[in-house]
Amino acid sequence: MNHTQRMHALEAEILTGIPLTRAMQLKVLSYDGERLCLQAPLDPNINDKGCAFGGSLASALTLCCWGLARCVLQDAELDADIYVQDSSIEYLLPVWGNIVACAQASNDSSLADFIAMFRARGKARLQLQASVWENHQEAARLSARFVAKSRVKEVK
Amino acid sequence: MNHTQRMHALEAEILTGIPLTRAMQLKVLSYDGERLCLQAPLDPNINDKGCAFGGSLASALTLCCWGLARCVLQDAELDADIYVQDSSIEYLLPVWGNIVACAQASNDSSLADFIAMFRARGKARLQLQASVWENHQEAARLSARFVAKSRVKEVK
Repeated sequence: MNHTQRMHALEAEILTGIPLTRAMQLKVLSYDGERLCLQAPLDPNINDKGCAFGGSLASALTLCCWGLARCVLQDAELDADIYVQDSSIEYLLPVWGNIVACAQASNDSSLADFIAMFRARGKARLQLQASVWENHQEAARLSARFVAKSRVKEVK
Repeated sequence: MNHTQRMHALEAEILTGIPLTRAMQLKVLSYDGERLCLQAPLDPNINDKGCAFGGSLASALTLCCWGLARCVLQDAELDADIYVQDSSIEYLLPVWGNIVACAQASNDSSLADFIAMFRARGKARLQLQASVWENHQEAARLSARFVAKSRVKEVK
């Protein structure tokens, strides 16, 4: 499966498995093996002030990181359950348009080390970061830690 | 307006102003002037693993704190726009049932000081904490900083 196919499979998986993402009208925009971007339109994600709801920003940022971890494991032909352990978000500016979030490994983290550790031990942690951008300005920034564990049984 | 009326008004405001909360089927459970609790059923907030979606937990926790800040300002007959500035969440246990989140002032924070500061300056910050509980166990914990600002113009 190439990166474009992987991206479409992830979108289908998210929309099927997490009904709230259908209400958010979430789409996977891009994936290149190291970075993953999602989009959600403003209208279903608006708040009382007419800008993006903080919960939608948090959801998009967290899912963006989760999706990146999922895709890089699948690229390595590894299947895992991936959980978010903790996260912190800075809400820097209100978002008045569509939500566009992009995720990548944190500066002190490596996707290759994550894959190698998972392959060796069946369990690995990964620190990821994601940001929402609007008009070339960073509007929200998340840092989050994920853990991937080998599946004991198939969920589906 | 007493606390019960305030709680119903908050629920109506949230469900009207933030469409995603209708998809989450959010309800305000209780408010006593110092603590506010929200509930959302599992089904519309489920993830691919059959437990609560992290984005729904983050949204419920953040809204719970936001709602508490809104209600205590309204109890003091003060109107403000309230924004989340930053937050951190620990996801401690998967949530297999309905999401029940309760918010209160952080240990080193005071709702009375927040009200007094807002009254004096038209702007005030507040550190709040919220947790999701299931079977008497803390399943997720948020700490978040909010800022309240006097409204320059009426939004509605």
